[in-house]
Amino acid sequence: MKKDVAIVGVGQSPFYRKCGMGARELCFMGFQEALKDSNLKPEQIDASIVCSAAEYDKQRSPASVIADYLGITPAPSFNLETLCASSSTGVRVAYSLIKSGLHDIVAVIGFQKMSEITSHEAAERMGRGGDIQWESPFGVTMPGYFGMVASAHMAEYGTTPEQLARIRVKSSIYGESNEKAVYRKRINVEQVLNSEIVTSPLKVFDCCANADGAAVVIMANAEKARKITDKPIWVLGLGGSTRGTALASRLNFTSVAVSREAAQAAYEMAGIGPEEIDVAEVHDCFTIAEIVAYEDCGFAKPGEGARLIDEKQTYLGGRIPVNLDGGLLSKGHPVGATGASQVGTITRQLRGECGKTQVEEAKIGLIHNLGGPGFYNYVTILGRD
Amino acid sequence: MKKDVAIVGVGQSPFYRKCGMGARELCFMGFQEALKDSNLKPEQIDASIVCSAAEYDKQRSPASVIADYLGITPAPSFNLETLCASSSTGVRVAYSLIKSGLHDIVAVIGFQKMSEITSHEAAERMGRGGDIQWESPFGVTMPGYFGMVASAHMAEYGTTPEQLARIRVKSSIYGESNEKAVYRKRINVEQVLNSEIVTSPLKVFDCCANADGAAVVIMANAEKARKITDKPIWVLGLGGSTRGTALASRLNFTSVAVSREAAQAAYEMAGIGPEEIDVAEVHDCFTIAEIVAYEDCGFAKPGEGARLIDEKQTYLGGRIPVNLDGGLLSKGHPVGATGASQVGTITRQLRGECGKTQVEEAKIGLIHNLGGPGFYNYVTILGRD
Repeated sequence: MKKDVAIVGVGQSPFYRKCGMGARELCFMGFQEALKDSNLKPEQIDASIVCSAAEYDKQRSPASVIADYLGITPAPSFNLETLCASSSTGVRVAYSLIKSGLHDIVAVIGFQKMSEITSHEAAERMGRGGDIQWESPFGVTMPGYFGMVASAHMAEYGTTPEQLARIRVKSSIYGESNEKAVYRKRINVEQVLNSEIVTSPLKVFDCCANADGAAVVIMANAEKARKITDKPIWVLGLGGSTRGTALASRLNFTSVAVSREAAQAAYEMAGIGPEEIDVAEVHDCFTIAEIVAYEDCGFAKPGEGARLIDEKQTYLGGRIPVNLDGGLLSKGHPVGATGASQVGTITRQLRGECGKTQVEEAKIGLIHNLGGPGFYNYVTILGRD
Repeated sequence: MKKDVAIVGVGQSPFYRKCGMGARELCFMGFQEALKDSNLKPEQIDASIVCSAAEYDKQRSPASVIADYLGITPAPSFNLETLCASSSTGVRVAYSLIKSGLHDIVAVIGFQKMSEITSHEAAERMGRGGDIQWESPFGVTMPGYFGMVASAHMAEYGTTPEQLARIRVKSSIYGESNEKAVYRKRINVEQVLNSEIVTSPLKVFDCCANADGAAVVIMANAEKARKITDKPIWVLGLGGSTRGTALASRLNFTSVAVSREAAQAAYEMAGIGPEEIDVAEVHDCFTIAEIVAYEDCGFAKPGEGARLIDEKQTYLGGRIPVNLDGGLLSKGHPVGATGASQVGTITRQLRGECGKTQVEEAKIGLIHNLGGPGFYNYVTILGRD
């Protein structure tokens, strides 16, 4: 098992539907928790990576403002972005900065402050994450993209609206226990099915919500990690993939190519297969996205993802528990913070700190983090000693 | 001398004041030249880093669109940004991706398409690279920041408008030979002094121009580099620094802290001092910035930068020739492309390919690339076999 680079601290602000704080204050909350978690001081951080998607708030190039506010200058910092996968990409790049010997301890700071603009404005900006020459001008939005995926999956495999709704029900059960989640109320299948249509067949409760929030991951080389913590969580596998945005070039809509490719690369690097994953966080920006992620990560065969939820195999106690923090559907989705939040959850699971959502004897965990409807995916596999 | 990671190919589009092409076409031009330079095929690139500053054109998250257009998917790609220093930061991160063993051959693709918005709109966006809570709302722009630096340098050290003008004259002499530069006409001191005031004491000809353009750097590990080229250019030193944006927290305006810190870190990594640099590219976004860069890089003592230009020590044949491609003042400054363009020039200098601007026997070169008026600096030191 690789033990070169470890996660030594994680922290997260609460995620808010709309809060009065700006990006720097949100990052401060996440960073303070990560410092406390690792028992580190700001001056021990020797580089930082600030991960967020552009144009949701006014601050361009936030790295310098945020690094300054957190007291981690003049260590080098920069902005990194792959839309919703930004902070998982940050984890990959932090690994390389450490493994290459350039830095010993690196903070990955993911955030998004989305409530300064209206949700219509946010949808327009999200659209411009897609191809602005051939696609976004024609009006496709993120729910539109995933509505097509849901329709295709239903047509090809017979997946039903009830099965999608079951994903949201599971999310609500675990979201109830997550004090930092936006939505913490249990809902049932009927409530999901009766909620308003957003993009057929997706309804309001099939969709995650824009949010304000920050999450921080502190990583270190093996020598430092051993000194910092008794429970280093090792980076075992990293996989990344990027593909063009055009829907016209997609061969099918029932699977996401970048997700399969990133998962495969991460498994290869870790030298394991999907059957060895004890707990996972997948990018459930829409209910259908979680079902497709089961298949793309190899937890289920193509077309059989919905069976996993029917059989409650992705519940606590099931074969492969997924999104035990409530996922994006309950937590909310502050784009740049999402990956680091997922990594935080898996880190705590592998340390055995998750209380009533703890997977017993969890040794290896996986994070699947999608950018846009298939532009980027970065998969991370973590393991405990 | 470190020989772990090398530059094996460089390419650049022409830089335009305004062109009819979009970002992807500009990147294609730079990439094709870099492929030809390295004799590589797109499928040999196993990761890419797309470097640009946000909000100059409509495309958010350009990495996936551009990687797709260049034919280098599904290799992982991501966006990286430190304002005007973005692609030098890209070179640092590419080094780490390669040195860590994650990738063998990485393309750093810097670009900016600035002409889709008016120069007033561009100035507003540039301002929002600074602190949007405490600073940019009060109207400070990039010429404003550097006007303060020029005023302080004049007050403290007696630097004169004529000395600033001499920087622009040198730029015009070498810009004349650069077929890809926006401005290729020789100008004299009087023309600079008589040009319209932008922000006292800076005049139009003291300022670089916004531009459209792209530049590409392809890097590889030692084993691959030896196979790809007979003239690998090795990464000897890398230094980076980040500082908060607030003018109020600056102790002085005659020097740029991040530049001194980044240069020092790069010298330390390379195990050399400024006296061993044979040729340099520094970030001359304004004439005063070049004089301050001489001092911050250690080519002159504090306050003695202007003497270097008076004595023509930074001309070809002088002690330390600087910006022999005309620099930003002649080339134009397509923000994200600038660092990769500087790296391209030093790479060609070290290979001995620069014709009438060639520094004889150039063995070691330095690139100084500033982000904003002191938010980021990334310094790169390169050497030939």
